[in-house]
Amino acid sequence: MTLENMTKPNLLLTPGPTQVPPEILRVMAEPIFHHRTPQYRALFKSISEDFKAVFRTDERVYVFTGSGTLAMEAAVANFCSAGDQVLVLEAGKFGERWHAIAESYGLNVISLKAGYGEVVTPPEVDDALKKHPTVSVVYATLCETSTGALFDIEAIGRVVLKMGAILVVDAISGLAADRLEMDAWGVDVVVSGSQKGLMLPPGLSFLAVSEKARTLNRKAKCPRFYLDLANYERALRNWDAPFTPAISLMCGLREVLNRILETGIEGVWDQAARLAEKTRTEVRKLGLDLFARRPSNAVTAVKVPQGLDGGRLVSVIRDEKGVTLAGGQGEMKGKIFRIAHFGAITARDIDRAISVLAETIRELKP
Amino acid sequence: MTLENMTKPNLLLTPGPTQVPPEILRVMAEPIFHHRTPQYRALFKSISEDFKAVFRTDERVYVFTGSGTLAMEAAVANFCSAGDQVLVLEAGKFGERWHAIAESYGLNVISLKAGYGEVVTPPEVDDALKKHPTVSVVYATLCETSTGALFDIEAIGRVVLKMGAILVVDAISGLAADRLEMDAWGVDVVVSGSQKGLMLPPGLSFLAVSEKARTLNRKAKCPRFYLDLANYERALRNWDAPFTPAISLMCGLREVLNRILETGIEGVWDQAARLAEKTRTEVRKLGLDLFARRPSNAVTAVKVPQGLDGGRLVSVIRDEKGVTLAGGQGEMKGKIFRIAHFGAITARDIDRAISVLAETIRELKP
Repeated sequence: MTLENMTKPNLLLTPGPTQVPPEILRVMAEPIFHHRTPQYRALFKSISEDFKAVFRTDERVYVFTGSGTLAMEAAVANFCSAGDQVLVLEAGKFGERWHAIAESYGLNVISLKAGYGEVVTPPEVDDALKKHPTVSVVYATLCETSTGALFDIEAIGRVVLKMGAILVVDAISGLAADRLEMDAWGVDVVVSGSQKGLMLPPGLSFLAVSEKARTLNRKAKCPRFYLDLANYERALRNWDAPFTPAISLMCGLREVLNRILETGIEGVWDQAARLAEKTRTEVRKLGLDLFARRPSNAVTAVKVPQGLDGGRLVSVIRDEKGVTLAGGQGEMKGKIFRIAHFGAITARDIDRAISVLAETIRELKP
Repeated sequence: MTLENMTKPNLLLTPGPTQVPPEILRVMAEPIFHHRTPQYRALFKSISEDFKAVFRTDERVYVFTGSGTLAMEAAVANFCSAGDQVLVLEAGKFGERWHAIAESYGLNVISLKAGYGEVVTPPEVDDALKKHPTVSVVYATLCETSTGALFDIEAIGRVVLKMGAILVVDAISGLAADRLEMDAWGVDVVVSGSQKGLMLPPGLSFLAVSEKARTLNRKAKCPRFYLDLANYERALRNWDAPFTPAISLMCGLREVLNRILETGIEGVWDQAARLAEKTRTEVRKLGLDLFARRPSNAVTAVKVPQGLDGGRLVSVIRDEKGVTLAGGQGEMKGKIFRIAHFGAITARDIDRAISVLAETIRELKP
C-alpha cells in the first residue's frame, strides 16, 4: 500500500454509492433545521420543480426516505392488487428483484427472462403482452446494474402504450447517466435513488408518476402505509412531507440539482456517454472482454480474465491500490467486475482505474 | 431580528429532528465508502453490539434506511396477518398512527383511547386483554411526542406478559431520554429513529426484536419486502445490509454511540430528566400550565396562554428570535407548544428558550 493510499480515501467507482463532491458533503454538514417550516417547504418545492428536467416529465416526483428498493416496492404496492397479472422483464439481479417484490404481494407474475449480460427485446415484450392482454403493469429496468446492460426503454414504451398497461422503469442507476425521456417515451413510473447519477449518499429514493398511473393507484388494494402515494399526495399540496424527511440529504439534493441544471441533463448524459465509451475502449485495449452486449453509460461490466480470481482482483485493487470497483453479484460473483462512470466521476478517475487494473492483472496472472 | 439571529442557525428545540453536534456533522461529511466491504461490516457489527446498551437488550437490533414510521410499519407487517386481533393504545397522534398502519394491513384493531395529554393505564390494558384474550400484539408508545405524555411501559409490560401477546413500543422520541428497559420490562419490540435522542439527522430507523417476536414473525403473512425482517436476518449473518444503507448516517451513528457509551445510558437518562425538570419548573414560573399529566423527559408540552395565538407564538419565536419550538399537531394545533430536551440540548439552550418565550408572550399579549 502506497502512502497516498494510506492517507487518502479510496477512489469510489462502484455503481452506487458513488463519489459525493466535497462541496455537497459540506452543504450536508450544515446545522439541521425543522421540516415543518417555510424554509423546508421552499426547499422541497424547488427540488420538485427542478426534478422535472432530470426525469424529463411534467408529472409529480415523490420523494421517499429510504433506499432504491423502497421506491421499487412503492411501484408495486401502489399500482397493484393481489392476483393482478404483471409482466416482469428480467436479465439480472434487479429484474429479479422486481419479480421477488411482486411475488411478495401475491401478484400473478409473468416473467420474461434474458441471460445475464443480455436484455429482453421490444418484440419479446410485444409477444408477451399479446399473449397476456390482461397484464396491468410492465416492470422493466433502464440500466441493469448487475450486468451493465441497457434496455431499449423507448421501443418498449411504444409496445406497452399500445396495450394499455402502465410501464414502470427502474432507473436507479440509469437516471442522469443513460438517456431517459419519461413523458416522450410513454413511461408511466420512473424509480430512482440518491446514490448513483445524483451523486449523493444513499438514503433518498424517488418515484415519478404519470396521470395514468395515478388513476390506477386509486384502485390498487395492496396494503401500504409508509410508501402510500395518498399520504405523499396530501402532503404535497403544501410542499410538505408526510413523514420526517432526510433533511440533510434534501439539502444536498438541492445543490446537486443546481449542478445538473447548470450543465443541463443532455450535457450530463453526454458526459456519461463519453466516459463510458472511454472505459470500454481502454478495457478492450487491455485485452479484456466487455460483458453486456448493449452497454449502459452508467456502469461497464468486464469479464474477469481466465485463470484469475475475480473476488481477489477486486479486493487487491481496493485494499492495496486504493480504488473501489464492484465485483459481480449473485451468479456473476467472481466472473465479472464493474466500473461506474456517472455522477462526479472524471476521465482522470477512469485513467487511474484502468492503470491499477492493468497493474493488478499483471501481478495476479499465474 | 437581532444580528445573532441573522448569522447563526436557529436553536432547534423540536422533538425531532434535534440538534446534531458539529463533530457528528463533520464525521458525516467524510468521503463516502462502499457498503459491500470489510470496512462497512466492521462498522455495522460494532453499531449492532453497542446498540444493546442503549435499548437495554441482548436481542437483535435491525437498522432500516427510512423514517421512524417505516420501522412502525415494520412492527406491524412483520408480526401480523390480515384479520389478526391487535390492541392499540392511543392518546395522541402517534398512537393514532399505530391504528392507521394496523388498519391499512386489514388487522382487527381494538382501540384503547385516552384523551390528549393523558395516558392509557396498565389496569385498562389488563381489562382489555382479559376481554379480548386472542389479541396477539399490543401496540404502545413510550413518549407520545404529540402531547409529551409518558406511558408506564414497565407496568404495561407486566400485564401483557401474563396474557401471551407481544408488546411493541414506539420509543421513537423516548429512546435515550426516558428510561426504557427492553429485556427487564418484557418489551418484545422497540421502535426508534435517528433524529431524536440519538441526535442524528433523520433517515435511519431501528427495530429491536425479542426471540418471542421473531417466532411470531415466521408465521406473519402481511405482504412485505423492503422491511421484511427475513431479508435483514439473512444479511446480518455477515454483518451486511440487504439494501444499500444510509452510509453517512451510519458513520454518524458510530460517533453518537461513542458519546452515549462514554456517559452511559443511565447518565443520558439522568441528563434528560434534569433538563425536563428544569423546563417544567421554568415554564411554571412563567405562569404557564403543563399539558401532560404524566410528563416525559423527552419533550415538554405547554398550554398556550389564553388569548394568545399558538401558531403565531411559535412562528414569531422561530422567525424573529431564532429558536425553533414545535407547535401542536392535529387537534392540538394552536393549543400547545412543545420544547424538547434530549440529545445534545443543554441547560443553556433551555434558558434561552425560556427567555425568548417570556419575552414573546409579553410582546404578543393583548
